[in-house]
Amino acid sequence: MRDQPRSGCAINAAVEAIGDQWSLIVLRDIIFGNRRHFRDLLTLSDERIASNILASRLKSLVAEGLLTREEAGRGKRATYSLTEAAIQLVPVLVALGSWGLRHRPTTRELAVRAELLEEAGPPLWHDLMDELRELHLGIPRPDADRPRASEQLQAAYEAVRS
Amino acid sequence: MRDQPRSGCAINAAVEAIGDQWSLIVLRDIIFGNRRHFRDLLTLSDERIASNILASRLKSLVAEGLLTREEAGRGKRATYSLTEAAIQLVPVLVALGSWGLRHRPTTRELAVRAELLEEAGPPLWHDLMDELRELHLGIPRPDADRPRASEQLQAAYEAVRS
Repeated sequence: MRDQPRSGCAINAAVEAIGDQWSLIVLRDIIFGNRRHFRDLLTLSDERIASNILASRLKSLVAEGLLTREEAGRGKRATYSLTEAAIQLVPVLVALGSWGLRHRPTTRELAVRAELLEEAGPPLWHDLMDELRELHLGIPRPDADRPRASEQLQAAYEAVRS
Repeated sequence: MRDQPRSGCAINAAVEAIGDQWSLIVLRDIIFGNRRHFRDLLTLSDERIASNILASRLKSLVAEGLLTREEAGRGKRATYSLTEAAIQLVPVLVALGSWGLRHRPTTRELAVRAELLEEAGPPLWHDLMDELRELHLGIPRPDADRPRASEQLQAAYEAVRS
């Protein structure tokens, strides 16, 4: 982590903060897979992230202010939570997913959520961000009676898997 | 470059293709700065990209199908052009810029275009993409009588500089 970005450009600043592939993959797994512990992020990884890379990326994501790490006490597992800055990366991940769908080989099972996020557009992204704020920051969802974005995404995923 | 992405996830596929910071910075300079030659990309770089890194990123962007390289003949400089896949990264760069504006230090001069792209929204991005298709792929702009997106962006930049 650098104290100051290499330039004052907004794109460069973002890219320096999150622009290595494993950091984005770790954030994706926390955002869409609700993986909060080192072991889950390691063992459930579709891309088989290496243990030392995961450890270094979690450390730098905490240093960058994108994750917080909470020790649960002796012998208990630490829990990682998204910060507001990380939650606001949802539109970036959606844009990356839309591009990947069109320009790279993907599997139906793993692409269906990217498709739904693209089709449903910003209202679904904002519902998802509100849900993440509740889960990670303890901020109650403003529209608590609406169905959860995660349920819609999970349903789409299950429908393709079965 | 790998033959197949590590998983069938659309986000991962995108991140593997473009998820190192320098590749995105090179694409940004071609898209927003219309830098088409090695020397311009090197010497005009705000982030002072190193020559060997620039050479390796250009090579991998060509291998990934994001750039094409045209030799102009003996002793002439090669020209790089965006492919359609690279042009469709505009919304990803806009999303990164919007995030960088909010969550990282930026300078007014270099952030003003990110602000304009965010405020104007998808119509301006699509105008910019049409203009890039004209410049890089030789496809005439559908709305040739409308002002160029690049002129709007340049005007915003100049207004802040002066």
